[in-house]
Parts: sequence; structure tokens; C-alpha cells
Amino acid sequence: MPRLITAYSNPLVKRIQALRDKRHRREEGMFLAEGLRILTEARETGRLPQFLFYAQASAQHPLVLALTHDVEAAGGEVIETSEAILSKLSGKDNPQSVVGAFAVFDTDLATLDRTRSPIWLVAERLRDPGNLGTILRTGDAVGAGGLILVGDCVDPFSTESVRASMGALFTMPIVRTNWEAFLPWLRSGPGQLVGLSLRTENHYRTAPYAAPTFLLTGNEAQGLPAEMEAECDLLVKMPMLGKADSLNAAVATAVMAYEVLAHHTPPAKD
Amino acid sequence: MPRLITAYSNPLVKRIQALRDKRHRREEGMFLAEGLRILTEARETGRLPQFLFYAQASAQHPLVLALTHDVEAAGGEVIETSEAILSKLSGKDNPQSVVGAFAVFDTDLATLDRTRSPIWLVAERLRDPGNLGTILRTGDAVGAGGLILVGDCVDPFSTESVRASMGALFTMPIVRTNWEAFLPWLRSGPGQLVGLSLRTENHYRTAPYAAPTFLLTGNEAQGLPAEMEAECDLLVKMPMLGKADSLNAAVATAVMAYEVLAHHTPPAKD
Repeated sequence: MPRLITAYSNPLVKRIQALRDKRHRREEGMFLAEGLRILTEARETGRLPQFLFYAQASAQHPLVLALTHDVEAAGGEVIETSEAILSKLSGKDNPQSVVGAFAVFDTDLATLDRTRSPIWLVAERLRDPGNLGTILRTGDAVGAGGLILVGDCVDPFSTESVRASMGALFTMPIVRTNWEAFLPWLRSGPGQLVGLSLRTENHYRTAPYAAPTFLLTGNEAQGLPAEMEAECDLLVKMPMLGKADSLNAAVATAVMAYEVLAHHTPPAKD
Repeated sequence: MPRLITAYSNPLVKRIQALRDKRHRREEGMFLAEGLRILTEARETGRLPQFLFYAQASAQHPLVLALTHDVEAAGGEVIETSEAILSKLSGKDNPQSVVGAFAVFDTDLATLDRTRSPIWLVAERLRDPGNLGTILRTGDAVGAGGLILVGDCVDPFSTESVRASMGALFTMPIVRTNWEAFLPWLRSGPGQLVGLSLRTENHYRTAPYAAPTFLLTGNEAQGLPAEMEAECDLLVKMPMLGKADSLNAAVATAVMAYEVLAHHTPPAKD
């Protein structure tokens, strides 16, 4: 049976709300995800929240019923609550009808099976949670094997990142590591490290990609450090015809990821 | 000579700060842009702020000197101020060293020269300012002729959109119009309207693009309405190999824009 919570001062409400803060996510080992679409995505990939909050008005929605059933069957806690408390949990004026608190689930490099996909995404010192979520969403769309975060990246389990991923967070392995650990792992098996650079003549459309391709995206403001560029097996450049001379990091990653996908899986000719 | 303002209560500070609000932008016909990079970009394209605020600590920076000189020469007002007031103007804890208030400058369909570029970007009911700014930045990178906003789109002169554009806002024509005006204008000259769709078998890599190509991006949540899809000269689909089955709107626009660029301007073969 769902528990009913209607008081702002309820300790569980305070505890779950605090997950919007990085320090509390680390202490609790949990993060927030909101919305029927994203929670249903999670459920379909086998991930259920430890705590599920839903609005009384949505209690009879078939997807809410399916979620509450599965969460209870898995030993999680289901809480019926008000829109006002959902709004408090999510920090949004118009809250989604469900909010879940999930266990953080990033994995280790050692557990990755690099034969799983011809495309892997690697980001170093990515700072913007929207970019991180968008890169996850792109990774899902191109069938990437996973996202490897190198160095001091923004938290992939931050509320903004989860939102921007539109559920893709749940569909692929995420590894948090550093360059000193990543590089030996990469070199311990097949893998082509590819970076975008201005210091190359290789056009990204005609470059010799080899699977599995590890696409390396640099920090939004600074791009790739020279020592990481030097470790790349292939540097490519994209046309920059404008005056501003740069692309958003998530956009550059997506154009590259679709290019590599077309290389490894060419479209059928008419 | 620059004017010195150090009081929060100064009426000009209040007036400029209010430009973060859409209603005040409309009333004043001005918008905010921040940062030396973006204001220098603007200056290089011939756009100068009507009001330029800079931090006392940055007074001797060569780019600040160049800006203050040009703004004064053009009859604008230059204001030396504190970091605290810049922070108040921009709404950010760590403000940029300069903030400018520029005249809004969107243009009419009738003034667009469609022979200027083989790629044009069209967005309908785009809701996210970050997406809009990112699309402007992509448009600059692919050398797009301009961005045409159709229907109820987010304000391209909002502070977040200007930020996300990283200065690209100043580099290309922006038109705000509606579908009823856009379609007759499009049909009054050469132009292929291209939309992304799930209801087509045309793979985006092998589709017959024709210049000038007008790439139509739909609303983030709903995509293109059926009646707009029906008006497209070409519908294409992109591979979606994942579970989440969608891309961020700015990402989809970028992958398509780079595809069309490669079609119209193929890379040299080795």
C-alpha cells in the first residue's frame, strides 16, 4: 500500500529534495529523476526507484499503476503525495506527475565490453549538465556502447543532466574515471581514439575511422589539452565557415557520432 | 568620458537589469549581451551597444578600450561600474567584465537574399532558449543564410539564448514570422523545404538535397505538425538505434545542417 505524505515538513520529503544537491547525492548514493516518460524508460531497462512519489491525481494512470506495482514488488517505497510536494521535490513550478529516487549506478572501466558497440563516447572535463544529458541522449540514438567521463566532469546524476538526457541516462553504461586510468584501459584492447582538432588536415567526412571508435569530446571552453590530442589515434576537423568559430560541445559530439555511425553502418544505396 | 555608476539604486541600472524580462525587452527594443568575447564579436560585425557597462578592474583591457572607444564614437553611453553591479545586471554570481544593451535587430522575410547561402535554418515553436542559441551557433558554423523563427518561438534576444549563441546571434539575419507568411515567401522563389520525420523511408545521408535548402526544425516536445510535414519538399529520417527514440532539437538540426553542407560542398577527396 502506498504511504500518504502531505506535509512539507516530512523528513523523507526533505531528504529526497536534498538530492538536488551534489553532496547529498554522494552521501545517499541516490539521485532524482522525474516524469512518467523517463521513469517508464528506466523501468523498461530494469531500473526502479527506491522511492517513488506520485500525485494523487495521477494514481489511476496505467503507467503510474505499472510503476507503483513494480516498485513495491522490488521492495521500494511508494508515496502518494500532492502536486505542491512534487513541485518542491523537483524544484519546478509545474512538476511532473512522478518523481523517483534511484540508486546511483555508474560502472567501472573493467566491466565494459568494448565489442558491444562500434561507437563509444568519451568526455573530459565536461562542465554543463545540459550538454552531458544531451550527449547521453545522442549516445542512445547512435547505439553507443557507453559514456566514459574523464577528469572533473559535471555529475551525470544531477537533476539537470537527467532531465536533458530524456531517459537515455538509464539506457547505457556510464563510467567516471580519470585520464591516467582511462588511457591504459583503452590501450589494453582494440580501440581508436578520435579527437576534434583545429590542428589537422583530416576532414571528418573522409577520415579512416576504425571500430571500436572512441570519440573524445573536450571541455566546453578549452577543448582538448595538447597531451590528450597527442594520444589520439586520429584527429579530424569539421568545417567552420562562420565568424564565431566554435560549436557547442554536445552538437560537435553528435555530428561526429552520426558521422562515425554512417561510416561503420553505411546507409543502403537506392 | 565614461560615466561612473556605483549605486544599485541608479535608475539606469534598474532599467538595464529589467531587460532580462521579455516585456521590458519589447518595451525598450533592447536586449542584453555579456562578455568580452560576445561583445567583441558584435563589434566586428558592426553592432555596438547603446549602453556599455564595464568593470573598473577591466578598464585597461585592450578589447575593453576598443569597445569603449567605438561605443562613444557611435554616440552610445559608456558606464564604468563595480563587479557587484555587473553581477546584478547579468544575474550571475561571477559576472563577465562587460555587459552591453543592444537594439533588437531582427529583420523581415522580404529583406532576405536567398542566394546568399545554400543552407537556411527554420524553426517552428522552438521553446528552449538554450536550443535557440545553440542553433544560431551551428548556423554560424555551417555558413547558414539566416534563422527564420516560425510561430510562437522563444525570444532569440533572451539572455539565455544570447549566451548559448556565443555571439553567433550577431552574425546572421534572424526573422520572426508565422507559417502563413513564411510559406508564400518560400514559394515565391527557389527553395527546398526539408523536414525530419519518422514517416519516411528517405535516409538523411542519401537524400536528394537541393540548394537553397531550408531545414525545418519542429517543437522540442511535439515535432512538426502534420500540415507542415505535408508542405515539405523532402522528408528524411535519421537512424535511431536506441530506446529513447529522440534527439535534442538543436542536435538534430546540427547533424542535418552538416549533412546538407557536405552535400552542397563535398570535402575534397585524398
